[in-house]
Amino acid sequence: MNSDIILLGHGSGGKLSHQLLDTLIIPTLSQVAERDQNDSAILHHEGGRLAFTTDSYVIDPIFFPGGNIGDLAVNGTVNDLAMAGARPLAISVAFILEEGLLLTELKIILESMREAAEKAGVRIVTGDTKVVPKGKGDKLFINTSGIGVFDHDLEITGSGARVGDKILINGTLGDHGMAVLASREGLELDADIRSDSAALNHLVADLLATCGGSVHVLRDPTRGGVATTLKEIARQSQVEITLDESALPVDDTVAGACAILGLDPLFVANEGKLLAAVAPEAADEILALVRRHPEGEKAAIIGEVTGTAPGKVLMRTAIGGRRAIEMLAGEQLPRIC
Amino acid sequence: MNSDIILLGHGSGGKLSHQLLDTLIIPTLSQVAERDQNDSAILHHEGGRLAFTTDSYVIDPIFFPGGNIGDLAVNGTVNDLAMAGARPLAISVAFILEEGLLLTELKIILESMREAAEKAGVRIVTGDTKVVPKGKGDKLFINTSGIGVFDHDLEITGSGARVGDKILINGTLGDHGMAVLASREGLELDADIRSDSAALNHLVADLLATCGGSVHVLRDPTRGGVATTLKEIARQSQVEITLDESALPVDDTVAGACAILGLDPLFVANEGKLLAAVAPEAADEILALVRRHPEGEKAAIIGEVTGTAPGKVLMRTAIGGRRAIEMLAGEQLPRIC
Repeated sequence: MNSDIILLGHGSGGKLSHQLLDTLIIPTLSQVAERDQNDSAILHHEGGRLAFTTDSYVIDPIFFPGGNIGDLAVNGTVNDLAMAGARPLAISVAFILEEGLLLTELKIILESMREAAEKAGVRIVTGDTKVVPKGKGDKLFINTSGIGVFDHDLEITGSGARVGDKILINGTLGDHGMAVLASREGLELDADIRSDSAALNHLVADLLATCGGSVHVLRDPTRGGVATTLKEIARQSQVEITLDESALPVDDTVAGACAILGLDPLFVANEGKLLAAVAPEAADEILALVRRHPEGEKAAIIGEVTGTAPGKVLMRTAIGGRRAIEMLAGEQLPRIC
Repeated sequence: MNSDIILLGHGSGGKLSHQLLDTLIIPTLSQVAERDQNDSAILHHEGGRLAFTTDSYVIDPIFFPGGNIGDLAVNGTVNDLAMAGARPLAISVAFILEEGLLLTELKIILESMREAAEKAGVRIVTGDTKVVPKGKGDKLFINTSGIGVFDHDLEITGSGARVGDKILINGTLGDHGMAVLASREGLELDADIRSDSAALNHLVADLLATCGGSVHVLRDPTRGGVATTLKEIARQSQVEITLDESALPVDDTVAGACAILGLDPLFVANEGKLLAAVAPEAADEILALVRRHPEGEKAAIIGEVTGTAPGKVLMRTAIGGRRAIEMLAGEQLPRIC
């Protein structure tokens, strides 16, 4: 551990987050917990397989272009279940409200949660509400946990990538993170950047029903962005992944905002995106299928699994070079989800 | 709604909490959520019945006599599953850490979570860690969600109480709330008051395996205390419950501390207690069984279901009178769990 206190970077989803888990949380809980390297844990019981996931949302600001903390919390947990290949059965919602929060704001957030749940086709079956004194929270934090069930026997995990697999993303990089940051910093831009917050369960269900056997890994590149998520996949699957810089879909306004702020869209959070490692022979069919979904119109093949050097991610640059990609170090964008 | 902002009382578990749920949260989420009046939601799917529950813990202080926020979070969620008659299958843990939290404190809390999970025999299968800037949280908040499975066909819900049922509690009232408050206020007492924080799943499993058909309601009287929980049961079951004041087990030191602070132990939170409505003919056997468990040594029959006046709770006082018991109004003890 670099220090004896919690730093903002411990919440980045990047290097410090992994360090906190690997050196403190998991070792201390070792008898009762294992390191869950996937977006959902898979439980086996008499009734079959279940997926189970949890996430707390502490995003600042709670309202941003393209969404708010409410739909983000629903979509995020639905997506974590979908990334395991599960169909979301039910979610829970737990609020930590700061004394003084406007009920009108809470109502707007609840309405967004309802809309997001309706779109995803998932029910909110249980909840909890706590209140903390003014100055001991920040408007509201939301935890959503979710249970998913399986309509197939496929095992979709982060360790499934194989040499030769193509890496697919369902659209542009970094929209969510830059929308939140632009809104937080009051950045004046030529065009609006909107969060990509969306539920991907319908897209994943279609994908698995049609080409399930060719889908080896699914993961959503949230905190830490595409770079950090690919590093995780490369580590879990013990492979080397090479990205094509020229193939990465990035919105012009997002690219411009990143340039102004000195950020790399590869490390910026997404909330309606998935990365997939798919069998090369099915890649074109899968790309076409994903593009038929509204959440996949700008899908692209952005790289491939190029070898067995464990945990390595390389970028083939536009001018023909190669550079290594690392996990997000420190905290690029605090409180992005 | 009494006001247009969130008040501390909205987190009390009492009247204001119910009002917030009934007038804002549930109506706004209506298409995707129903009012979950039990400690766990029950899900039916192809693989059978599941129980699902969530709770966030924001207790202040995070360390108190008899426990800390860590074991509290594990026990609380294990108990919510047990109150549905379910066997805890797995729990999730999500931390919201305040920048600057000492890692040594986090470690102690993690150790307590491990011990509590070991005792309860439940695994922590998935988690999440977020960090908020100093001054935007309060050391740490923990959400635990849990999934339970059923080893029987019994339906244990808050609506199962029947006229004639005996009301049982497994021990003394108000220990948790008074331990936290005494510690928070620096109260000097003759003897230590310790939180009753404990997992009740083993006790409940024994109870259901032995006398399952005679157990009609189980519920843990946490926020709002025994009074609020009995009001909830009386409403859900559409019955009148009458308590015997002289039968209520209260530790002398707790009674003394309550007297000093002008609090009624009936409204003070418990974290290792359950209330049960049981068939009268089995009440003695159940009482004896509960008393054989370490968490039930001071169990007592404290009242009975006396009629069908829906939602009414009465107290037969020591001097022979009767008074009506209401839900906790306002916020007696903020941040008690």
